[in-house]
Amino acid sequence: MQERLTVPEKSKNPNNIKAKKPAPAAPKMTGASIAAADDTVITALALKPDRLSPAMAAYFAKCQERLGFVPNVLAAYAFDNAKLEAFVAMYNDLMLAPSGLSKLEREMIAVAVSSVNRCYYCLVAHGAAVRALSGDPPLGEMMAMNYRAARLSKRQRAMLDFAVKLTTEPWAVEESDRDALRRAGFSERDIWDIAAVAGFFNMSNRVASATDMRPNTVYHKQAR
Amino acid sequence: MQERLTVPEKSKNPNNIKAKKPAPAAPKMTGASIAAADDTVITALALKPDRLSPAMAAYFAKCQERLGFVPNVLAAYAFDNAKLEAFVAMYNDLMLAPSGLSKLEREMIAVAVSSVNRCYYCLVAHGAAVRALSGDPPLGEMMAMNYRAARLSKRQRAMLDFAVKLTTEPWAVEESDRDALRRAGFSERDIWDIAAVAGFFNMSNRVASATDMRPNTVYHKQAR
Amino acid sequence: MQERLTVPEKSKNPNNIKAKKPAPAAPKMTGASIAAADDTVITALALKPDRLSPAMAAYFAKCQERLGFVPNVLAAYAFDNAKLEAFVAMYNDLMLAPSGLSKLEREMIAVAVSSVNRCYYCLVAHGAAVRALSGDPPLGEMMAMNYRAARLSKRQRAMLDFAVKLTTEPWAVEESDRDALRRAGFSERDIWDIAAVAGFFNMSNRVASATDMRPNTVYHKQAR
Amino acid sequence: MQERLTVPEKSKNPNNIKAKKPAPAAPKMTGASIAAADDTVITALALKPDRLSPAMAAYFAKCQERLGFVPNVLAAYAFDNAKLEAFVAMYNDLMLAPSGLSKLEREMIAVAVSSVNRCYYCLVAHGAAVRALSGDPPLGEMMAMNYRAARLSKRQRAMLDFAVKLTTEPWAVEESDRDALRRAGFSERDIWDIAAVAGFFNMSNRVASATDMRPNTVYHKQAR
Amino acid sequence: MQERLTVPEKSKNPNNIKAKKPAPAAPKMTGASIAAADDTVITALALKPDRLSPAMAAYFAKCQERLGFVPNVLAAYAFDNAKLEAFVAMYNDLMLAPSGLSKLEREMIAVAVSSVNRCYYCLVAHGAAVRALSGDPPLGEMMAMNYRAARLSKRQRAMLDFAVKLTTEPWAVEESDRDALRRAGFSERDIWDIAAVAGFFNMSNRVASATDMRPNTVYHKQAR
Amino acid sequence: MQERLTVPEKSKNPNNIKAKKPAPAAPKMTGASIAAADDTVITALALKPDRLSPAMAAYFAKCQERLGFVPNVLAAYAFDNAKLEAFVAMYNDLMLAPSGLSKLEREMIAVAVSSVNRCYYCLVAHGAAVRALSGDPPLGEMMAMNYRAARLSKRQRAMLDFAVKLTTEPWAVEESDRDALRRAGFSERDIWDIAAVAGFFNMSNRVASATDMRPNTVYHKQAR
Repeated sequence: MQERLTVPEKSKNPNNIKAKKPAPAAPKMTGASIAAADDTVITALALKPDRLSPAMAAYFAKCQERLGFVPNVLAAYAFDNAKLEAFVAMYNDLMLAPSGLSKLEREMIAVAVSSVNRCYYCLVAHGAAVRALSGDPPLGEMMAMNYRAARLSKRQRAMLDFAVKLTTEPWAVEESDRDALRRAGFSERDIWDIAAVAGFFNMSNRVASATDMRPNTVYHKQAR
Repeated sequence: MQERLTVPEKSKNPNNIKAKKPAPAAPKMTGASIAAADDTVITALALKPDRLSPAMAAYFAKCQERLGFVPNVLAAYAFDNAKLEAFVAMYNDLMLAPSGLSKLEREMIAVAVSSVNRCYYCLVAHGAAVRALSGDPPLGEMMAMNYRAARLSKRQRAMLDFAVKLTTEPWAVEESDRDALRRAGFSERDIWDIAAVAGFFNMSNRVASATDMRPNTVYHKQAR
Repeated sequence: MQERLTVPEKSKNPNNIKAKKPAPAAPKMTGASIAAADDTVITALALKPDRLSPAMAAYFAKCQERLGFVPNVLAAYAFDNAKLEAFVAMYNDLMLAPSGLSKLEREMIAVAVSSVNRCYYCLVAHGAAVRALSGDPPLGEMMAMNYRAARLSKRQRAMLDFAVKLTTEPWAVEESDRDALRRAGFSERDIWDIAAVAGFFNMSNRVASATDMRPNTVYHKQAR
Repeated sequence: MQERLTVPEKSKNPNNIKAKKPAPAAPKMTGASIAAADDTVITALALKPDRLSPAMAAYFAKCQERLGFVPNVLAAYAFDNAKLEAFVAMYNDLMLAPSGLSKLEREMIAVAVSSVNRCYYCLVAHGAAVRALSGDPPLGEMMAMNYRAARLSKRQRAMLDFAVKLTTEPWAVEESDRDALRRAGFSERDIWDIAAVAGFFNMSNRVASATDMRPNTVYHKQAR
Repeated sequence: MQERLTVPEKSKNPNNIKAKKPAPAAPKMTGASIAAADDTVITALALKPDRLSPAMAAYFAKCQERLGFVPNVLAAYAFDNAKLEAFVAMYNDLMLAPSGLSKLEREMIAVAVSSVNRCYYCLVAHGAAVRALSGDPPLGEMMAMNYRAARLSKRQRAMLDFAVKLTTEPWAVEESDRDALRRAGFSERDIWDIAAVAGFFNMSNRVASATDMRPNTVYHKQAR
Repeated sequence: MQERLTVPEKSKNPNNIKAKKPAPAAPKMTGASIAAADDTVITALALKPDRLSPAMAAYFAKCQERLGFVPNVLAAYAFDNAKLEAFVAMYNDLMLAPSGLSKLEREMIAVAVSSVNRCYYCLVAHGAAVRALSGDPPLGEMMAMNYRAARLSKRQRAMLDFAVKLTTEPWAVEESDRDALRRAGFSERDIWDIAAVAGFFNMSNRVASATDMRPNTVYHKQAR
């Protein structure tokens, strides 16, 4: 899901996304079957896939072609095409559109925020993105485990300090916090983008946790 | 912003939204001038308004016509039309599209979540919505102050308990929490909607707090 | 309850305060009936009113005459005249006696502390007082929602920072915190008064929450 | 301070209470001199003693006669006779007047609450009271360190669970919490008293912490 | 347990340590019987004493001879001689071996950490050690109740601030925290020792709390 | 460090462990150089390696032979042979000696506890152990990110719930928590072992965080 995509539509029994019945208590599984489950039973909610719009069907096909898989978050939203489109539009604007923040920096925010919220889906999916974009696998681990362990530039440290404070105590963010970003070289627009990405993952973390969303197992081995 | 709107475009010096220079330290103001400031200096970020797309310009005009004002959150996003459109699309789908949750229930979630996060903008704007939609001004106050003080139906209490737990400790939400919603009569789709609205305001609260977004002063007197 | 009052005594079936049986589960009510309930069923405890002393009966009568109602907190304490008198004496000394803090400042502390403790009774009753004393309705809202959103003088910000820290982590208040007040222009006596008001509402918030004390509905519309 | 007292008045240079200049940074002292300091420099605020009313002077004299010392909290309030009288009236009503709670139980609440708030003054003074009233020195220690370590009756455990929850998260106290007290045998009036004592120490803890109030050193050796 | 000890072995029914059946619910006891219980029923786990190695038997005998009792923590570990030996080796190295920290300072860390974790066993046993080693009984109380109440040298305050931060938010300890220790005069090795002692009591506190470990009653009266 | 080891001694310039000067501010590095640094500059403390005892030298050699490297935690403790020996003895007893808990279960506790404490060293090193021992890489990720996301047996879930509660609020662990373990099939001895392993990592997490201990980079790729 690392770029904007356009593709043809799928047909009936639409998107190869399996509906799911509410999980009958906690199933016990071995490692292999967990992986299998995570790729087929994507959330704890039994929602039937909606018919995708041509734009969304094309997007899914493009994901399949370029990434080799459709990220489970998209499959999770696919029970309602309107919600899927809104999510994709906001996600792509935030994470892929031009910004004073690099794509890696936006992914670092995503993972540091998801670490605070302990969101399994986002840590796995976006941890892989940090590893891939940085070429530095331990950096992905540090973002997921404790961003303070990373040796970061002052700019990136200020960026993550802001994003994490905004996550843990948003009520206490004030002008002095914005000024710390300005001193670290961020523009007014960059400050918005840091806030918007941090905010977005505070949303996504919660949608994922609320639905027990499972990451595609393929992420685990990426860019190690 | 209580319904979908469509309208003609605005012209240059586009949207009657004032750009703002970074606030020079904390200005001290009397009551009246604070109100004035909140309606003109909408965020702490100095961002110039973008040229709105026809769709967005129409939306703003419709707000002006129907509400008598453009909600400041829209003006805040108007520095970038693409971000504004993504926000409006997601917001309108979540809060106004058909759902097993009434519009009032969605606004109750919005305010209860914003109370946890102590978001001034959202508490003022959506507190007014709860007052208006319910015809019960104290209900709006209780959502903003402590939702546990309200005498709620079991359904609504379960809904807010879930939304608030998802806000304060998303990592601890599990199948038993979803089952509590099912027992209270919510469908799988309703559970998604509760999660999505709670998630959305966890995002918006943080964007608002990060930018010191100020609510239109008109909200204060609405539906008292 | 904005000034000292003296009045004649009431007779048997004394004070027009209704005893209450323990609420039979959570009653579900519409807006109007909630308001009704809040004015008649003042706490969750079934306590019969005591016979008021002449001084207290006079005080109640004066409240009725000047405010148009007896604040519910007084009715709540009226099950025991001695407790009522002790409460009234301490309250009036703290909130109304001469002090280096204005009455508005004392009410601002009351609301900011009650916001931390999410006390519905005190937020409603004292939020109204801030609105009335300041002539600035949004100021009352900011005290109740997040005092950091208000544009305050350095003096008032220091005052509230101290009161809120004293509320959330009293064990961590030290000489450096007192010195911050001194630097903001507060005298030794003022520091005591800030602490005493903040302390008092940490008490009252808990008595109110423990008993589900309900604010008079008249407060909601005051000074909007 | 274990009973109501009446006594003759003191004369000029009134109460043998030393005014204090703001402590010049943190003084370093040996054990013996700390004790000395705690008995002479009672708070961090430089407040001159007020002239005591005859009632208060008598009360101080009675303390001196019966306890052998005036509790420092009284000396601390003695900078203002009106505040002292209000404090003494409320304290004596709560802790010494007839109640369904024994004096020991009220002191147990005092110490368990003060433990949450880590108030040095109250833990020392009221820890001594628990030791003395119970004849069980370890009980005083357990109240101060972790009340859950004590082997308590169901009644007393329920009482302290309520008081501690009311201290740490007053916003979450609801009918189910009151019902737990009712099931443990407490009357409606007893519930008020538990709440009022817990509330009172949430006030006193904060006044003491805000002013660095020091306990009389004599408490340390009492009832060991 | 204030020095290294060597002693002869005990025989069968080995160490005078009573095995314990799981406590049948919370027993209610008077002061005297609690004391008795604490000296005989040492933990909530029914574990039979292991046969002690000669070294450990000698150590126990030495404790008995020098202290007059075997500290209950040793008796608690005595269900498995290997675990006992590992615990004793680490404890003695940390608390008694040469270090830039005095034995008193190490005990102060022990108590301040145990206060955060509210560990009854360690607060009683090591609180007594602080009283004894310092000759300043109130110092022991302040470490147990709120170390910030003590008038400490800058060195000792920095030491405890580090130990307590490491206890409450270990993830946030960074180079600036180590530098604060260096500025207070601590060597690299001293920093290790502060961390190691603080770490050790974060372990011991949890083993004690997990097993409801009871301190020897003799500690209560020591060095008052 | 997955088994007990015995080996010959190393010679002068003893253990191939580099002393470290205090890190001159936060160095900025690329991915590759971070890895390099983590394998050579093991902690933030400048401590010279001690001469290892024959037993410890043999242990290090055995690690090198069997694992291909000496775990950095051992190198970190090697500034003092006595501390190293005590650490190794306790570690090996806890993690490798016979127990009712499997080695995997003990590693799961290690990682779940380290996740609460956000300890980079322990999450990397013991996360690798969970992956290796389970043959289930995602299980290691779930332990590090949010153990609640894993589909665990009731036994293992109860075990981790206890370990995590003991980590976050040790003061609140009571008989009911131990009973939950008993109901899940754990023996008295097993309960001790769960507590002891959880306790040990609460210690190690803090020693690692206090010293900025860096994990061997080899762990990152293990058992993916």
